[in-house]
Amino acid sequence: MTDTVLSSASREVVIGFDRPFVIIGERINPTGRKLLAAEMAAGDYSRVESDALAQVAAGAQMLDVNAGVPMTDEPKLLADCVKLVQSVTDVPLCIDSSIVAALEAGLAVYQGKALVNSVTGEEERLESVLPLVARHGAAVIAISNDETGISEDPDERFAVAKRIVERAQDYGIKPADVIVDPLVMPIGAIGVAGRTAFTIIRRLREELKVNTSCGASNISFGLPNRRGLDGAFLPMAMAAGMTSAITNPLHPEITTAVRAGNVLLGHDKDCRAWIRAFREPGAEPEADTGGRRRERRRRREG
Amino acid sequence: MTDTVLSSASREVVIGFDRPFVIIGERINPTGRKLLAAEMAAGDYSRVESDALAQVAAGAQMLDVNAGVPMTDEPKLLADCVKLVQSVTDVPLCIDSSIVAALEAGLAVYQGKALVNSVTGEEERLESVLPLVARHGAAVIAISNDETGISEDPDERFAVAKRIVERAQDYGIKPADVIVDPLVMPIGAIGVAGRTAFTIIRRLREELKVNTSCGASNISFGLPNRRGLDGAFLPMAMAAGMTSAITNPLHPEITTAVRAGNVLLGHDKDCRAWIRAFREPGAEPEADTGGRRRERRRRREG
Repeated sequence: MTDTVLSSASREVVIGFDRPFVIIGERINPTGRKLLAAEMAAGDYSRVESDALAQVAAGAQMLDVNAGVPMTDEPKLLADCVKLVQSVTDVPLCIDSSIVAALEAGLAVYQGKALVNSVTGEEERLESVLPLVARHGAAVIAISNDETGISEDPDERFAVAKRIVERAQDYGIKPADVIVDPLVMPIGAIGVAGRTAFTIIRRLREELKVNTSCGASNISFGLPNRRGLDGAFLPMAMAAGMTSAITNPLHPEITTAVRAGNVLLGHDKDCRAWIRAFREPGAEPEADTGGRRRERRRRREG
Repeated sequence: MTDTVLSSASREVVIGFDRPFVIIGERINPTGRKLLAAEMAAGDYSRVESDALAQVAAGAQMLDVNAGVPMTDEPKLLADCVKLVQSVTDVPLCIDSSIVAALEAGLAVYQGKALVNSVTGEEERLESVLPLVARHGAAVIAISNDETGISEDPDERFAVAKRIVERAQDYGIKPADVIVDPLVMPIGAIGVAGRTAFTIIRRLREELKVNTSCGASNISFGLPNRRGLDGAFLPMAMAAGMTSAITNPLHPEITTAVRAGNVLLGHDKDCRAWIRAFREPGAEPEADTGGRRRERRRRREG
């Protein structure tokens, strides 16, 4: 029953084994988005703001914020974006950079308990990121690769994750504050990528008892109808035990798949969120909302 | 590595652990289809024929044939439909009736090795259906309920399935010719229906080592956006080990989910079926089809 608690100044989100899956919106990331990168470099954050609002409206419970524009002052950019996004939404953030100074700048201005994206099993990264996470009382995403690269052997990927969790404990970061990313590979290139991911996710949950996340759209890279594959991968990964993903909530195939996974794993009590999302306009409310309707009527009348 | 081999006069389909999932088209069934029932009762099988062709075109590898129209000569109707469907398609059939005499009439005219739908754990049903299945060298769907009804306890449902498989062996039917239906319940009524199904499916595969099937749309009964739920349930059940389902291939959400499940479990070599199904018209063929393109060109030129 592992719970990872993240927060903003006013709101808490819990990633956990017996809870609805948490979608971390991936859009605020200039990688591969030329226009966004150019705007960010010029200090124009209007698209960061609109992307934040749109993703939260679409169902993201957290947002990843990455400001990795080459040849810029990334620490300043990331801090600016973190401040801006926190000023327009109340969801907790995932502060995302490959540059430790940028993570530090983002954490310095962050209000609440952030998720740091990410640490790997590489010695240099462990030694620079983990103390930072500990000092800020944050949680961290641990990516299961190390100096030797990404192993195709699920046992080795599991072993790397285990080592990161142990090292985090040495720095005073408890296992519940380490969310492991098992590194999902493109299935178009590696035919066992799905089965490998499900096997690692299951072991991470049952043996290491940690929460898990991944960049969910990696799986479909290079293939047609990517959303069709992503929409099946997410429920399968949820069934294996995955509890969050960095993905794009603006694709309805993604949010529908996650909502359905929540229903099918029993994490959507009385299917209320599902019914709220999909009840046809004008249809009779389901029996289970009667209580709330009466409640509203009473309040109106009272 | 359990394989259940079914056949028509000219074609074999294998339901198995390491093979693509088999969709058994559910449409040829007058239950809840007033027009079809009236037509069948009047001896008009035109819709049976068009439903057969449409389902095969949409991706069904087998077809369920049910002729359960009340107040009719169901054995004759079922035999007529089996003959008709076998005359217009070459997929193996699932002969479906609650009336043993109808199963017998269907099997009598069937060409190939049929799947009989179904036997339950009820003593009277075991004693009437299993000898029939054995005599015709058919395979059978075993539904995991008995005289006491449908247990909500996955262990009891598993125990009923185990007993049916054992009883089938007494009649000379090998376990590979028994496909267990774990009885998927509507999740709108029973919140644990998904988890229960996944648990039983996994045990049926790992402990009893049998193939599994189910009426896949039961899960979403009574809820809005049923296809959205079905489209997540199927990949999750496939990840748990389910190898076939009686469902409606005319819904693209269903066939896309099954195709994606095949890809993600490594049962679609080089993603070929996926790419064939979804490659955009006019798009460059993927590298792996180069061989076939050259082949076609050679044939044209030769």
